[in-house]
Amino acid sequence: MTKEQLTQLLQSEIPLCQFMQLTVSDLAAQNIRTHAPLQPNRNMHQTGFAGSLYALAVATGWALVHFKMTSDRAEGLLVVKKATIHYKRPVTSDIELHAELSDQQASDSVKAQLEVEGKAEFPLKIWIESAGRKCGYLEAEYTVVI
Amino acid sequence: MTKEQLTQLLQSEIPLCQFMQLTVSDLAAQNIRTHAPLQPNRNMHQTGFAGSLYALAVATGWALVHFKMTSDRAEGLLVVKKATIHYKRPVTSDIELHAELSDQQASDSVKAQLEVEGKAEFPLKIWIESAGRKCGYLEAEYTVVI
Repeated sequence: MTKEQLTQLLQSEIPLCQFMQLTVSDLAAQNIRTHAPLQPNRNMHQTGFAGSLYALAVATGWALVHFKMTSDRAEGLLVVKKATIHYKRPVTSDIELHAELSDQQASDSVKAQLEVEGKAEFPLKIWIESAGRKCGYLEAEYTVVI
Repeated sequence: MTKEQLTQLLQSEIPLCQFMQLTVSDLAAQNIRTHAPLQPNRNMHQTGFAGSLYALAVATGWALVHFKMTSDRAEGLLVVKKATIHYKRPVTSDIELHAELSDQQASDSVKAQLEVEGKAEFPLKIWIESAGRKCGYLEAEYTVVI
C-alpha cells in the first residue's frame, strides 16, 4: 500500500477526510506524516477548528495502524475506544500531523496477536503542528478486534 | 439569540460544521440539543466516524457556552484546552447531542468572572446518542479568556 493509496482510502471512504483534504505525505513501516490545508479546517478566528484538528489526528493514527495491519496481513475491525486531545497553541497555518509506532508495536505481528488474544491494542500519540511549531497532540487508544 | 441564529453562526463560520450539517434543535439558558445526519459523518463501516463524533460534540459544547456568554453580554475568546472522548457503542443512525450547564455554571455571570479572574472555565460533558441510545460522551474543558 502506497501513501497515495492510503490517501485515496481515507478520502473515498470517510467523507470528512475528503472535505478536510487530509493527505498522506510520508508513509513507512513505523511512522506516518499527513497534512491538510487550514481553509476547510478553520474556525471563526481563522485558526484551526478544535474539531478538525482532532478529526485529522484521529484519522492519521487510524491510517498508521491500518497500514501496519495491511503489512501484517491481519484482518480485523480497527476502532478507537478513548482519546484525549491537548491544545497548546492556535493553529494559524496549514496543518501537519505525524505519529509513529514504538519499536515493540512495530515488531509485534498484529495477525499473531489477534490469533492469541483476539485483539491488539495500539495506544498512539499523534502530533499536530503548524508553521513548524507543535500546537498540540492527541493520545488515542486504538484497538483491533476480530 | 435563537437556535436558528446559533445554527447559522456555526455553519457560516466553521466550514466543518456546515459539511457535517450540525443543527441546533433546542436551546435554553442551561442546555442545548443538536443533531446531524449520519451520511456526511460516516466511516467505511457506515457507522459514525470517530472524528465527526468528536467535532460535533466539541462544537455543541462551544455553542452552549457561546450562548451563555451572549446572554451575559460577556466578551472574550472561547477556547477548548483539553478534551477526552469515550466511545461506547457504534453510531448506526443519525446523531443527536446534548449538553447542559450545572446550576452553578448557569447562575454565575461570565462577565463578572472575567472582570474578577480574567477568565472563566466551563468543564462540560457532551452526550452523543443515536437511535435513542447513548453511544459515547465528550468531557471538554472550555475556557473564556479576555
